Amino acid sequence: MTQTVTVALDAMGGDHAPAMVVQGAAIAMRRLPQTEFLLFGDKTKLEPLVARHKKLAARFHIQHTDERVADDAKPSLALRAGRNSSMRLAIDAVGEGKADCVVSAGNTGALMAMARFSLKMIPGIDRPAMASLVPTLRGESVMLDLGANIECDAENLVQFALMGEMFARTVLGQSHPSVGLLNVGSEEMKGHDAVRAASARLRAPGSPINFFGFVEGDDIAAGTVDVVVTDGWTGNVALKTAEGTARLVLDFVRSSFRHSLTARVGYLFGGSALTKLRKRVDPRQYNGAVFLGLNGIAVKSHGGADALGFANAIGVAVDMRKNGFLDLIRDGLQRLKNLAPAPAAAS
Amino acid sequence: MTQTVTVALDAMGGDHAPAMVVQGAAIAMRRLPQTEFLLFGDKTKLEPLVARHKKLAARFHIQHTDERVADDAKPSLALRAGRNSSMRLAIDAVGEGKADCVVSAGNTGALMAMARFSLKMIPGIDRPAMASLVPTLRGESVMLDLGANIECDAENLVQFALMGEMFARTVLGQSHPSVGLLNVGSEEMKGHDAVRAASARLRAPGSPINFFGFVEGDDIAAGTVDVVVTDGWTGNVALKTAEGTARLVLDFVRSSFRHSLTARVGYLFGGSALTKLRKRVDPRQYNGAVFLGLNGIAVKSHGGADALGFANAIGVAVDMRKNGFLDLIRDGLQRLKNLAPAPAAAS
Repeated sequence: MTQTVTVALDAMGGDHAPAMVVQGAAIAMRRLPQTEFLLFGDKTKLEPLVARHKKLAARFHIQHTDERVADDAKPSLALRAGRNSSMRLAIDAVGEGKADCVVSAGNTGALMAMARFSLKMIPGIDRPAMASLVPTLRGESVMLDLGANIECDAENLVQFALMGEMFARTVLGQSHPSVGLLNVGSEEMKGHDAVRAASARLRAPGSPINFFGFVEGDDIAAGTVDVVVTDGWTGNVALKTAEGTARLVLDFVRSSFRHSLTARVGYLFGGSALTKLRKRVDPRQYNGAVFLGLNGIAVKSHGGADALGFANAIGVAVDMRKNGFLDLIRDGLQRLKNLAPAPAAAS
Repeated sequence: MTQTVTVALDAMGGDHAPAMVVQGAAIAMRRLPQTEFLLFGDKTKLEPLVARHKKLAARFHIQHTDERVADDAKPSLALRAGRNSSMRLAIDAVGEGKADCVVSAGNTGALMAMARFSLKMIPGIDRPAMASLVPTLRGESVMLDLGANIECDAENLVQFALMGEMFARTVLGQSHPSVGLLNVGSEEMKGHDAVRAASARLRAPGSPINFFGFVEGDDIAAGTVDVVVTDGWTGNVALKTAEGTARLVLDFVRSSFRHSLTARVGYLFGGSALTKLRKRVDPRQYNGAVFLGLNGIAVKSHGGADALGFANAIGVAVDMRKNGFLDLIRDGLQRLKNLAPAPAAAS
């Protein structure tokens, strides 16, 4: 039995919207036959874009609005003044049960604020976290938090571990993903109080988490664990540092090949391999940072994403829905709760 | 006028010691004619190694000790029990004025603890920081702290900014290096209290620092600023993440070239360029993490360094000495102090 998944799209969010959004949805439709799309945005712009996809047009449903959230709008302002924006209406469609998940390439802060306000948190999760897939020597891993929470305590990190684990199950299809806590060393006495306390809870007997222990910065790309858990400050710096380093090394590759005649011949022959490589490490290939912890599925696409990147973000949202991500989190929370020492024992 | 610089070496520290140490010193001697070396370690092992370098032998002075600090020794234990170790005696030579600087490839924690105990801090600097050169699109930048201080307040970050700036002057020869504070965004309201307060102090009128403002993770490899300042937790994660990412991308380069016949031909021609490239991003090429803030010059070489890497670390120590690093710091501190609001005004 297959179920139809209805995806709400903020058709006006992102540098190349709305054309990129419609094109991305069309790519996703071909990949995922059991999907329908609610497009929120400017009808006069969206209708001709949808009309190009004759065979798919019936699966697009346009819901008109003139308003959109500006890319530089402050989250608090967007929340107050953006009630009729394409972003907010798309989120509300999930809250009202008209859609199963929402995808936007718009303003990250506004999306987080609106999604948190409209969808609320999963009971038992204190704060939402941003997660993404990252490329590794072994394939792909999940990393979180990537910037939603600058400061985190041990309880936040434990909840992130649980959500990251469930995300790896539903999106990467791993049956028992390993989870590591990012630290500056692997010994138990390393790091600050929050990581040490979180580690103690995650390694407690009966923990529902397959906890590896501490990992270090170089373990991210090595793929030492399936899920790398950290606070939003550290995750944001690490992710951007990795992106910058990948660009640097690729620049070195190009200039190394420019330096000698034989190497230039090599570049002629190897050029297409290098182009493929650039794509492989392009952050847009790992599109679809997900807000975990919300009582609904909301995926943030990279603002500069092209249609292919946006289709990948849609794929992440649909996978989460089909694999019952929210139910898995609720179940995992229950098991964590049974494990944690009760604040006041009844007996 | 040139001055002779006497370098104290922990001849027994590092994976490939003592042969690597003697060989590294010999390379450094050829590069730096006005240097002499005090080698602390096992005389029976060192004498035959030194004898291989006939022309240089007169510039080596062996000081025998049987003891060495184990690579896995706890810093506190090394400090108590390692008073006659090769590492400690080399550090003490600087404290006693017998040498101008010390270089060791041994146990990092022990080196930090011993150097802090024996050399003391520069008056006005609260905590030592580990700094290193990192490769960028524009050349090289300085990054600190790389792990000496897990948690830092605004005052620590301001002092790191000053020390990093002076380090860039003395080692990279930059006349007015730009300094950036690592953050998760470039806007002034981003980040936690310590980075915001440090930023306010560094951008105050009359600040001796050429302060760029906040930078993000991808600015490190882009070379946006000459000096990247952060706390030891974040610096450690960022540096190791960059190393891991460089390895990942190089692995992708190799496997991309393996995937098609034309690309394999390309690899044959471009192979030497790739080997050169691997060297260019090898962390050992950026050897010589320096402990800044101590009242003496102490350089930590990578434990796995080869002779060339160790010679680079010696070069960093000698540059710092020749360019008057300690005096520059004292002078900069005075200017910072004149700038800071006085705790209790006299008039």
